Amino acid sequence: MKINDVVKAEEGEIFDIELDENILKANAELAQQNRELLRKQGVKAIDVMGSIGAGKTSLIEKMVQKLKTHYRIAVFKGDLTTTIDAEIIGKHGVNVVAINTGKECHLDANLVQKALRRLDLEATDLLFIENVGNLICPAEFPLGSEKRIVVISVTEGPYMVVKHPFIFMDADVAVINKIDLAEAMGVDIAKLQNDVKKINPKTKTVTTNCRTGKGVDQVIAALNL
Amino acid sequence: MKINDVVKAEEGEIFDIELDENILKANAELAQQNRELLRKQGVKAIDVMGSIGAGKTSLIEKMVQKLKTHYRIAVFKGDLTTTIDAEIIGKHGVNVVAINTGKECHLDANLVQKALRRLDLEATDLLFIENVGNLICPAEFPLGSEKRIVVISVTEGPYMVVKHPFIFMDADVAVINKIDLAEAMGVDIAKLQNDVKKINPKTKTVTTNCRTGKGVDQVIAALNL
Repeated sequence: MKINDVVKAEEGEIFDIELDENILKANAELAQQNRELLRKQGVKAIDVMGSIGAGKTSLIEKMVQKLKTHYRIAVFKGDLTTTIDAEIIGKHGVNVVAINTGKECHLDANLVQKALRRLDLEATDLLFIENVGNLICPAEFPLGSEKRIVVISVTEGPYMVVKHPFIFMDADVAVINKIDLAEAMGVDIAKLQNDVKKINPKTKTVTTNCRTGKGVDQVIAALNL
Repeated sequence: MKINDVVKAEEGEIFDIELDENILKANAELAQQNRELLRKQGVKAIDVMGSIGAGKTSLIEKMVQKLKTHYRIAVFKGDLTTTIDAEIIGKHGVNVVAINTGKECHLDANLVQKALRRLDLEATDLLFIENVGNLICPAEFPLGSEKRIVVISVTEGPYMVVKHPFIFMDADVAVINKIDLAEAMGVDIAKLQNDVKKINPKTKTVTTNCRTGKGVDQVIAALNL
């Protein structure tokens, strides 16, 4: 083992843009406005975050199928430039607003506020907000939702939780997906669950195979839906 | 199919921070300084980008094993707060500088310049710069390297290339990894290769299984090493 050195970014450095206090403060204020609007209108909003291909869209599809007879559901789907996933979710007959961020790697409360204006909130009980595929920046940008889910896949490797602590700090539920591939990937699920608990003991962990639907009822229970 | 609406981020919007021209310009200038320094010192630098768990570290490990008798190799390893991967690479006896970005989701030319100051460039022929796991923002921040590799994994799903066009525009080589899992994942590799070619016809695509080493010689050939 031979690490020669560690270079650390310091706060206030020229490109340390994510930490810009003004941006985060402005975002937090808009998030609070969103939160109040959603509460007033009786809409329960749930963030779904996670990396590319973790299974966010598949999880939302399965939850929509199970919940759409009980709730009037809408989905916001964040992506850079495409509407592929929005169309996939739209096939289930729920209201979908695609949010294209351009080159931005996360949703923010401003874009969500715009999307909320396009939605009939009186006709909505439950709103899933699927973020852009990214395990880093969405953590710093609250959107105004009531709960946050992080979806991770065993295919992301054994260190993916410890390497991305910030996103788990505020997560209510961590969904560990594609558990059918855990053995092939040599990933220990109990260790991943333990890694999540070490970061936030209050975060509930659920194991799923979103393709077959295994574990989705447990996610719904963990969200008290 | 039922998409009600598409909300698009507009240039100049409050949170459209990645597009801030001043930041990108300052980064480009520092990248140019890095490029000149590396050229002057005869160091060939190669970026390795890709999402979490795509196999960036595994690819670097395999290339190091094959190339370290021909080149004096150094590795910069970007991560938020950990040095797990830097230690893994360091076991192969090459010089490693860990770069911790804190909460930032990508390396930038400023952090790379700092790391270059910690390295004995006279004793280095080849430098791999492994970015933070992210398929979005690294695209906008050139670091001063000669070539860029993007590593993608079939486990990221069938739409991962079309959903993240920007990172492939400047990529010299796209490595499609974990091809042993393609069938289980229902992913068509020829389609992924075609998606890359549509974005940038000059990008070479190579299929690999970085765990076994399959295809790594072809990556090395594609880089003219």
